[in-house]
Amino acid sequence: MKKSAGKTVKCAILGASGYSGMELVRILGLHPHAEIIAASSNTYEGRAIADVFPWAPVSPKLKFIAHDKAAQTRGADVFFTAFPHGKCFPHIAKLLKKSRVIDISADFRLRDAAGYDMWYGYTHPLPALLKKAVYGLPELRRDAVRGAALVANPGCYPTSVLLALLPLAESGIAAESRIIIDAKSGYSGAGRSLKPHLLFTEAAGEFTAYKPTRHSHIGEMQQEAGGLFGKEIKICFTPHLIPAPRGILSAIYVQPAGDVDEKKLRAAYEKRCAAEPFMKLAAPGQMPSIKQVAGTNLGLMNVFYDADNGMIKIISAIDNLVKGAAGQAVQNMNIMSGLPEGEGLSTTPVIP
Amino acid sequence: MKKSAGKTVKCAILGASGYSGMELVRILGLHPHAEIIAASSNTYEGRAIADVFPWAPVSPKLKFIAHDKAAQTRGADVFFTAFPHGKCFPHIAKLLKKSRVIDISADFRLRDAAGYDMWYGYTHPLPALLKKAVYGLPELRRDAVRGAALVANPGCYPTSVLLALLPLAESGIAAESRIIIDAKSGYSGAGRSLKPHLLFTEAAGEFTAYKPTRHSHIGEMQQEAGGLFGKEIKICFTPHLIPAPRGILSAIYVQPAGDVDEKKLRAAYEKRCAAEPFMKLAAPGQMPSIKQVAGTNLGLMNVFYDADNGMIKIISAIDNLVKGAAGQAVQNMNIMSGLPEGEGLSTTPVIP
Amino acid sequence: MKKSAGKTVKCAILGASGYSGMELVRILGLHPHAEIIAASSNTYEGRAIADVFPWAPVSPKLKFIAHDKAAQTRGADVFFTAFPHGKCFPHIAKLLKKSRVIDISADFRLRDAAGYDMWYGYTHPLPALLKKAVYGLPELRRDAVRGAALVANPGCYPTSVLLALLPLAESGIAAESRIIIDAKSGYSGAGRSLKPHLLFTEAAGEFTAYKPTRHSHIGEMQQEAGGLFGKEIKICFTPHLIPAPRGILSAIYVQPAGDVDEKKLRAAYEKRCAAEPFMKLAAPGQMPSIKQVAGTNLGLMNVFYDADNGMIKIISAIDNLVKGAAGQAVQNMNIMSGLPEGEGLSTTPVIP
Amino acid sequence: MKKSAGKTVKCAILGASGYSGMELVRILGLHPHAEIIAASSNTYEGRAIADVFPWAPVSPKLKFIAHDKAAQTRGADVFFTAFPHGKCFPHIAKLLKKSRVIDISADFRLRDAAGYDMWYGYTHPLPALLKKAVYGLPELRRDAVRGAALVANPGCYPTSVLLALLPLAESGIAAESRIIIDAKSGYSGAGRSLKPHLLFTEAAGEFTAYKPTRHSHIGEMQQEAGGLFGKEIKICFTPHLIPAPRGILSAIYVQPAGDVDEKKLRAAYEKRCAAEPFMKLAAPGQMPSIKQVAGTNLGLMNVFYDADNGMIKIISAIDNLVKGAAGQAVQNMNIMSGLPEGEGLSTTPVIP
Repeated sequence: MKKSAGKTVKCAILGASGYSGMELVRILGLHPHAEIIAASSNTYEGRAIADVFPWAPVSPKLKFIAHDKAAQTRGADVFFTAFPHGKCFPHIAKLLKKSRVIDISADFRLRDAAGYDMWYGYTHPLPALLKKAVYGLPELRRDAVRGAALVANPGCYPTSVLLALLPLAESGIAAESRIIIDAKSGYSGAGRSLKPHLLFTEAAGEFTAYKPTRHSHIGEMQQEAGGLFGKEIKICFTPHLIPAPRGILSAIYVQPAGDVDEKKLRAAYEKRCAAEPFMKLAAPGQMPSIKQVAGTNLGLMNVFYDADNGMIKIISAIDNLVKGAAGQAVQNMNIMSGLPEGEGLSTTPVIP
Repeated sequence: MKKSAGKTVKCAILGASGYSGMELVRILGLHPHAEIIAASSNTYEGRAIADVFPWAPVSPKLKFIAHDKAAQTRGADVFFTAFPHGKCFPHIAKLLKKSRVIDISADFRLRDAAGYDMWYGYTHPLPALLKKAVYGLPELRRDAVRGAALVANPGCYPTSVLLALLPLAESGIAAESRIIIDAKSGYSGAGRSLKPHLLFTEAAGEFTAYKPTRHSHIGEMQQEAGGLFGKEIKICFTPHLIPAPRGILSAIYVQPAGDVDEKKLRAAYEKRCAAEPFMKLAAPGQMPSIKQVAGTNLGLMNVFYDADNGMIKIISAIDNLVKGAAGQAVQNMNIMSGLPEGEGLSTTPVIP
Repeated sequence: MKKSAGKTVKCAILGASGYSGMELVRILGLHPHAEIIAASSNTYEGRAIADVFPWAPVSPKLKFIAHDKAAQTRGADVFFTAFPHGKCFPHIAKLLKKSRVIDISADFRLRDAAGYDMWYGYTHPLPALLKKAVYGLPELRRDAVRGAALVANPGCYPTSVLLALLPLAESGIAAESRIIIDAKSGYSGAGRSLKPHLLFTEAAGEFTAYKPTRHSHIGEMQQEAGGLFGKEIKICFTPHLIPAPRGILSAIYVQPAGDVDEKKLRAAYEKRCAAEPFMKLAAPGQMPSIKQVAGTNLGLMNVFYDADNGMIKIISAIDNLVKGAAGQAVQNMNIMSGLPEGEGLSTTPVIP
Repeated sequence: MKKSAGKTVKCAILGASGYSGMELVRILGLHPHAEIIAASSNTYEGRAIADVFPWAPVSPKLKFIAHDKAAQTRGADVFFTAFPHGKCFPHIAKLLKKSRVIDISADFRLRDAAGYDMWYGYTHPLPALLKKAVYGLPELRRDAVRGAALVANPGCYPTSVLLALLPLAESGIAAESRIIIDAKSGYSGAGRSLKPHLLFTEAAGEFTAYKPTRHSHIGEMQQEAGGLFGKEIKICFTPHLIPAPRGILSAIYVQPAGDVDEKKLRAAYEKRCAAEPFMKLAAPGQMPSIKQVAGTNLGLMNVFYDADNGMIKIISAIDNLVKGAAGQAVQNMNIMSGLPEGEGLSTTPVIP
């Protein structure tokens, strides 16, 4: 793709043939100030990216190389690691010596190494790096991201939830410590893994919950929500699979600890969203939905007070592959590189 | 369709061209001991049913007639009224003089007439009939259904919820009074009404919540759940639309009022489900889903105790048009007519 | 499932966890005069069928066993082999010694062994059996099926095409020798194989042609269409994948070799379809579609004469897993066993 | 949306709330050198566009106005008319006095007024304008578009077909005069009209042909294909509906009138596609598909020679709302306005 004049951020993508990696290829390929100088896939090693993904906006000459080789790329300003959880460890130290890293897996999101034993079932091999990593939700930690050597890109579900809790917590509306989150994700959230229940034939017309207790994202949500509210938060979380390719919609149930009403709630959300390029409060009566954010980096939300039973409800929508993965990673890259934060990131979906 | 020897229940369907009515045509058309002797549709008046719905298992001679004319059908053992809410009132008294009635709308589900002002926005014109009507959830009120002159067939969301709360409440596990229900319905739940957001082009790939407060089914759920638990219950309810034609999946969050564990919960559910032809508890670790119940009269559920934050979660699936509407109506008809309760009702879905 | 009094056909299914095998389990499980006495899957060996497929209408005790073990089943009246092409050869001789066999793969559909080299890329190891096998399209070869030891169940695309050509050819309407077939199949037609392009995420919203020349079903179609028309027929065939789980819709373009008109065409189709339980001619102006046949054993078709350019068009719909595989196999089993041909086979779809 | 420095084309859209109109709003709203100064909808008159379509990239102040009022817009460089066929006539003369017009309906596509009686069932009220209108397929008539006062934007099916026939005809490969086209369109091709068969509930999982003879687009295809091949062409055309929101895939069957082979065919397509910004030949063995073009202005195609029966097959994919409607209209606007032809038009889809 034709690049604009001025600064160009040279990018290397490790793990470029999964869904997050493919989305990085799409976004960075179209980004006016980024250039993909290496992209790895052990599965497709040696094949042109444009041969595997004919739609990809990259030079026909750019080929997938092996992960090991990509890890040796010289001259990269940023490495993106987009592996399944637990797979970046052989590479990460090497990468950090050369350059800055944005990791899209969960491997550096928890501050406390014990969390990996609890939520992910493995013992973290590099606990020292956990202190160094910045949890890269720009809306919460923009300044720290700017100077970070290692950014832990937030999870998809946590992004949908934390964006929606931010205005509430920051405005000082007190909440009880148990928050119920009923979340629904499109099938790309399950990754490009080959399992029968992910086949079109089985998923079309289907809808189901999964992992009804102890989903691995709970630790991350509790860590960050705890920070937001300044106290321990207990997340009761149920994820579901929507028969749609992209998008997360989370319904968040918060019991206020004091008096609230919808006007006060709405004022808090309006103010906070107005200050952010990628947070948008839906108009009164309008509902966030996944098609309104598909392909965009938007966090679209609305907030309601259910006076009949005293509960705050927040409905929050993101594209799991964009704001929930590759888009947020590029937003972080923009911040780290001194580019306008929204460069190369869309806020308009292709509807209908 | 070829009918079996022995008793035949003669049925008249008022409102046979909406989705609930079409489903009645399908189920009764295949029922070995039922015969459709009249079916009404003002839209398609005069046309053969098999011309409008070529797949319908009915005689090529059977024609749609006007509602007024269908209301005068002689010899019907049961009238099914499948109108939108508030539309059966001109006919109901006349029908009850002739025969027994199973009403699929909400018009007789609430015992207290004031509920109609509150939840449906109309003043009930026939409050005396509310006392006469039996709320026809067979699993809860089988004996009353048997002798009923007027059955109020339960709503789709309430059915998915009440079946799932039955084993809990009946086993005496105490619960706090606020119950959170995050429910998701296929698009047929919105009826055959012609609105842009229901078009395939707009709904495909979409997922959204709607009516985040004061959904009209809340009154019905609170009435019946209150009866089950023997105290006032507050339902905090959020419905969503799934891009699938059929099925409801409800996630129900109950805070126990005393000690529970998953073993005790599971035992209560196993016992209760084993006694019912149309309630099924999924095996440990298996998740109910909408394709497992599509086209069937099953209520499929599973129950979990989330020990990390002290909440009971129940996941419940039904087909909104079958157990949530036409199938349950036929189940009621079977009971009222002395037929085996499951006659003509499937429990095996067409998968994949 | 409760079985009816009288004759019971004991069935063994080899390859019961692919889509055709699963559909055999569903249909035979509900069949009033069949009993599944063995079902094999090397993948799920040792697990209860109801554990893998909770919806299956089988005894909770019935377990998947290995193929080798299933091949030794005693007392089976019929073996169904539902393997991928080329995989039944190690078992077939053994099975034929014990019992009659209905093979759902392509391995016995071609009369000429050379066709396997040409269309399937393997040399047939048991050419003598090809003479013995009966190509089991009941509408064409009912009598031969009745006494067959080995039935080659027709392919899904060929079934959709041959049913649609039958009335034309048998009525003596002459046709040019090249027939163009543009066929579209739901994703279950690709089987339960795990490939990225079959994932929901990639298939949703997608539509594409594949194998634009030399699709393996061409040989089978040319063989049988040649027999129908009494001369060599050249099939120009393009298959496509529809983002739907089930169903094939074929558009068939035939150039008449003499005078025809729509009235004459329609008369031929009406007559032929009226004589068959599973062939149905749509009413004038109505279009066959895949939802009208989903879950059923119907071949639904309509015929048009495009007078502007002198072409006959036939639109033909079947469910690829039912009339295109398992349903047709059961129809053959019914014929072979002296049961009513339609026993256990539905003609009413679950719509909408 | 932020606009770039330099020239700005001021645009008025009549009929901005149908699918083509909505797509014009999206594309022009994001176009760096276009500005929407008026948008009409009688349905939504008086409401902010961003209230009806919250995702639209327009100023929150821009409101839908009535068609009559929009027709009086002053200062528009281009009027886009995006009405259903036959509805622009009350406005068109007035618009042409003020400015240049790009009409997205069929009302000016046929050169011969008699074609409207034949293919559309109405007598054209302004036959003189048919001589003035330029059929705006830029790949065929770029120069004429440049100076046109009135552009008849091509139909969606014809665009998919004519782009695919261009390289064949222009390279001089002779063809027989009957061409068979089996075309499939996403549901947005049926427009935003409210009919039961277009509801998600009925369309999901469905696939069907419609209008099997005399589809209104045949006249347009015959006119232009006749021009391309320099002789009368007979189009045998069957349209289908794909359960996908966007995209057309056409399979085109051409019988060569002389010797051809795939190499020669491919060379002709490679050469022609290389010269066009919005025509792309898929690599050997790769298949065009609708997701590869969704949201883009691409015409993606591949060509095959089926040596077994002597037919040329071309598979052609476009997005019916972009290259088949709004995108092509903007491509024409760019040409008419002296802007780079691809300005504001994407060639990268959002996949998966």
